[in-house]
Amino acid sequence: MRQLEERILADGKVLPGGVLKVGSFLNHCIDTRLLSDMAAEIATLYADAGVSKIITIEASGIAIAAAAGMAMGVPVIFAKKHRTTNVDGSVYMTVVHSFTHNEDYHVVVARDCMGIGDKVLIIDDFLANGSALRGLIDLVEQSGAEVVGMAACVEKCFQAGGDEFRAKGIRVESLASIESMSDDGKIVFRS
Amino acid sequence: MRQLEERILADGKVLPGGVLKVGSFLNHCIDTRLLSDMAAEIATLYADAGVSKIITIEASGIAIAAAAGMAMGVPVIFAKKHRTTNVDGSVYMTVVHSFTHNEDYHVVVARDCMGIGDKVLIIDDFLANGSALRGLIDLVEQSGAEVVGMAACVEKCFQAGGDEFRAKGIRVESLASIESMSDDGKIVFRS
Repeated sequence: MRQLEERILADGKVLPGGVLKVGSFLNHCIDTRLLSDMAAEIATLYADAGVSKIITIEASGIAIAAAAGMAMGVPVIFAKKHRTTNVDGSVYMTVVHSFTHNEDYHVVVARDCMGIGDKVLIIDDFLANGSALRGLIDLVEQSGAEVVGMAACVEKCFQAGGDEFRAKGIRVESLASIESMSDDGKIVFRS
Repeated sequence: MRQLEERILADGKVLPGGVLKVGSFLNHCIDTRLLSDMAAEIATLYADAGVSKIITIEASGIAIAAAAGMAMGVPVIFAKKHRTTNVDGSVYMTVVHSFTHNEDYHVVVARDCMGIGDKVLIIDDFLANGSALRGLIDLVEQSGAEVVGMAACVEKCFQAGGDEFRAKGIRVESLASIESMSDDGKIVFRS
């Protein structure tokens, strides 16, 4: 999506260690015009996929997931981080590893949110190593629902997540796909 | 907003201790049709207020804030929870008390997100004791911007937050205002 790529080049900041800061327009202060356009693009990409629900994980995926849900006319579930393993039988739970904080955390979804017959689109702002999205796949599969695909605003193709999911046969759509970033700030998109 | 009140009566669950569960349509699994309608209502209420930015706090306020931002055509900032007091000079920071977890946490906003001349609308899903919203007021005021008002999907009028803000002269709009809830599940709205 050219509009997003151009915005990343204009306002994104590359930090050492493969970090891309897009807080000024994507995931801290959100440009809602861009948000609408990204949601419309996801709705177009998955128009014929029969999506019945969207799932994301708190917190930074919520805005794009909610916008896409409005554009597609389907409910949006956001999986919640949970402090303990102490949950009752009303939820599905999985474990996600955070590379940012180097720790595991639990993520839950209420069982009555989705189930057999649902076709679920997984959405997040970033797709990098894929740890959070792997957790969401687990939650969808626990419920008996089907994963129809994933959509991310920004994919870091130099981390393994996206291509690993594609190798498993999962449809992955990324609105901006970054092939490489150098420490001096040069960004190359996958063509 | 009658549509939201009716939905709360139909699908909300009252738990002991003044807890209202609306996860099945408002803040865990989100009915995006309702979300659009709530956002349009907020946009109408604040149409003449000159709002230049919306601010909320992660995580459950993000969906309604993003939807309202799209409806109003303004950027949306979400204040982030922060693990330590160890921040650099690039952010404003405040402290919010969580009654749910009975602890204080830090909340930050990047300084370049808002400033003098901005007219900021504060949005959250719930308004109860007002602790989180008080923190957002502090962040807006630190930046030199002006608080033009607040909007919440659900106000628990039997907790002090909303009326405390009104007494200070802050405009507060709640789409559903709950006057009382009894442990047997009876909900009375403020007329």
